[in-house]
Amino acid sequence: MQNFVFHNPTKILFGQGTIPAIGPETITFGQKVLLVYGSGSIRRNGVYQQVTESLQKSGAEIVEHPGVQSNPLLSHTREGIKLAKQHNCQVVCAIGGGSVIDEAKAICAGAVVDHDVWKFFTGKKSVTAPLPLTTVLTLAASGSEMNAGMVITNEETRQKFGFANKKLYPQTSILDPEATFTVPADYTAYGAVDAIAHVLEFYFTTQDPATPVQDRLMEGLIINAMESCDRVLADLHNYQGRADLMWAATLALNGLTAAGLGKVGFPMHLIEHSISALYNVPHGAGLSAIIPGWMRYQCPRTPERFARFAERVFDVRSGSPAERGAHGITALEAWFQKINSPTSLHGLTIPAKDIPRIADNAVALAKVWRMPDYDSDRIQAILAIC
Amino acid sequence: MQNFVFHNPTKILFGQGTIPAIGPETITFGQKVLLVYGSGSIRRNGVYQQVTESLQKSGAEIVEHPGVQSNPLLSHTREGIKLAKQHNCQVVCAIGGGSVIDEAKAICAGAVVDHDVWKFFTGKKSVTAPLPLTTVLTLAASGSEMNAGMVITNEETRQKFGFANKKLYPQTSILDPEATFTVPADYTAYGAVDAIAHVLEFYFTTQDPATPVQDRLMEGLIINAMESCDRVLADLHNYQGRADLMWAATLALNGLTAAGLGKVGFPMHLIEHSISALYNVPHGAGLSAIIPGWMRYQCPRTPERFARFAERVFDVRSGSPAERGAHGITALEAWFQKINSPTSLHGLTIPAKDIPRIADNAVALAKVWRMPDYDSDRIQAILAIC
Repeated sequence: MQNFVFHNPTKILFGQGTIPAIGPETITFGQKVLLVYGSGSIRRNGVYQQVTESLQKSGAEIVEHPGVQSNPLLSHTREGIKLAKQHNCQVVCAIGGGSVIDEAKAICAGAVVDHDVWKFFTGKKSVTAPLPLTTVLTLAASGSEMNAGMVITNEETRQKFGFANKKLYPQTSILDPEATFTVPADYTAYGAVDAIAHVLEFYFTTQDPATPVQDRLMEGLIINAMESCDRVLADLHNYQGRADLMWAATLALNGLTAAGLGKVGFPMHLIEHSISALYNVPHGAGLSAIIPGWMRYQCPRTPERFARFAERVFDVRSGSPAERGAHGITALEAWFQKINSPTSLHGLTIPAKDIPRIADNAVALAKVWRMPDYDSDRIQAILAIC
Repeated sequence: MQNFVFHNPTKILFGQGTIPAIGPETITFGQKVLLVYGSGSIRRNGVYQQVTESLQKSGAEIVEHPGVQSNPLLSHTREGIKLAKQHNCQVVCAIGGGSVIDEAKAICAGAVVDHDVWKFFTGKKSVTAPLPLTTVLTLAASGSEMNAGMVITNEETRQKFGFANKKLYPQTSILDPEATFTVPADYTAYGAVDAIAHVLEFYFTTQDPATPVQDRLMEGLIINAMESCDRVLADLHNYQGRADLMWAATLALNGLTAAGLGKVGFPMHLIEHSISALYNVPHGAGLSAIIPGWMRYQCPRTPERFARFAERVFDVRSGSPAERGAHGITALEAWFQKINSPTSLHGLTIPAKDIPRIADNAVALAKVWRMPDYDSDRIQAILAIC
């Protein structure tokens, strides 16, 4: 185990009927609230009404910033910052999934500075004293509700960049599984893929093979994300399945899974960010298209680790480490297919001739993320088997 | 999964060489520091010197409160409170294991009020604005370094009582596995037993059998506590083993394992507290003496749960649920024996004729902990098979 700092101050309120707590939790930080959300889905399922009623009952003045897209855009983030400044908002409340919460974090950071918010993403400026953030989660996927990271797409430069800062943990996040009942099957599946991808990145890029406590935590989360996703796809209103998937996705990226692993990378997200920056595919769909190929590229380099994954997650017990590793990859790929998430570039309708273009984009991000071993050749070699 | 609130604000600094951070972490809260610790062991292994040097370098004024015993005493806690008041201490720094950290928490709560500190333990008073606490952990066991609970023994009334309050999470806890290198084999084993007992309490008293995310987390922690303890007992200076045991013990009782289980109980701790209040046996030794008996008493009531435990932790795959459950209990008991931790009252040299006396003491605590189903008959029935 490597040295680490773990400090996650986010307060989680989990369960049915917890949304009405959002008002009191939010106005602790001020009455002027910027309410950030996406499209009409939260109006249709009643979450919007529950949140605004609670905020109003608590005496909040609400400034609305709707229209966040999946793969949230820099231009829209800038509008939110302008609005927050104009109205002197004291706190931001996000209702949505990772995209909404990510954009809300960027608004929190950008609303208190004079420079452009993109400078945080390119590493040219550091976060100072951001506005506090509360969230109501409506999608089990990104883990953004209990971490300090965010990803935004700059549509001018076609860059999907991310950064994290410890001042940007949400103060309070409300996780009501019922708020995810109306998520359709495809996005439920993509969400599960995203959560699993977070764990896989850590599991397979750790520099330290001696992390048995973290390994069992990660293996358990992957198994639970898969099993709960299966239950939800069989019945979209299965409360326990929704609850397990939601909590597993949150724990997948709240700092615990990576604590003690040393320097980890996000190679799958690196490549996927370029794909969704160029083609605007759903994040989870882009990930499942990349993951089997990335794993097949990586498996010969650390076969023991892949064998352990296969054994612990898929009960694969025979064969050489490389063989067991390969079985594990095939089993995961089969599960992606079962939940109808694409498992190749072809499945995303991206032609092989675009590979150099995707690689160019990813190389730029690799520089920002300080992953120098991900050069164009390597990325193209991976994409060639995706 | 049941509704829950999870909010653990403790900052963990984990790893070799982290102790010199204690000065800066502590004086954030004030220069006047009450330093709480136990016996001479931290002087012999150099931890005391590292801590005081760091505090002094940071400009702290140190008031010393040494002499905390395992099963910390109310009288000594009162002395610490008196000292903190006398010197207007602004922050408490604890160096030690669960006993030291527990007493330090009680001092933090008691130093800012006029009434006696015991009133917190009997539920007659609530914690207001306690002094902040930092800790340097020297024993992997109680989890006190990352939770808000504490246990103190009132030697006048022979009561070992505990309570928790969210204002009493340590601000920062430093976990350097090397600080546990000098813990002898017996106390290393007792520490592992304590950590495992915390998980077992939740695992077997949950009101909700549908908590698969938490189940795998708990099963993983039990396996890791056992495996890392084995490695450490083979070589007391095994850094990775010490690190895994330390982190597993912390995660066992930091709120995550219980989040979502609904109302859980501490029946094993309930009975053990009475035993160590009456006989002053090491806490972990008392626990391992009780656990197999308690499990055998409980197994017929929830055999499916015991069967799952046996399967996931000890790979027991055949037999009826009750049979598998029984195998799991026997396997755990055998492991306790292997690490030389007692597995019966006889092993603690407590005669069977003392059972009513222990039960009387435990019934009083059951009232405070609101565990009305633990009456004298039930406790005696359990002790009869311990």
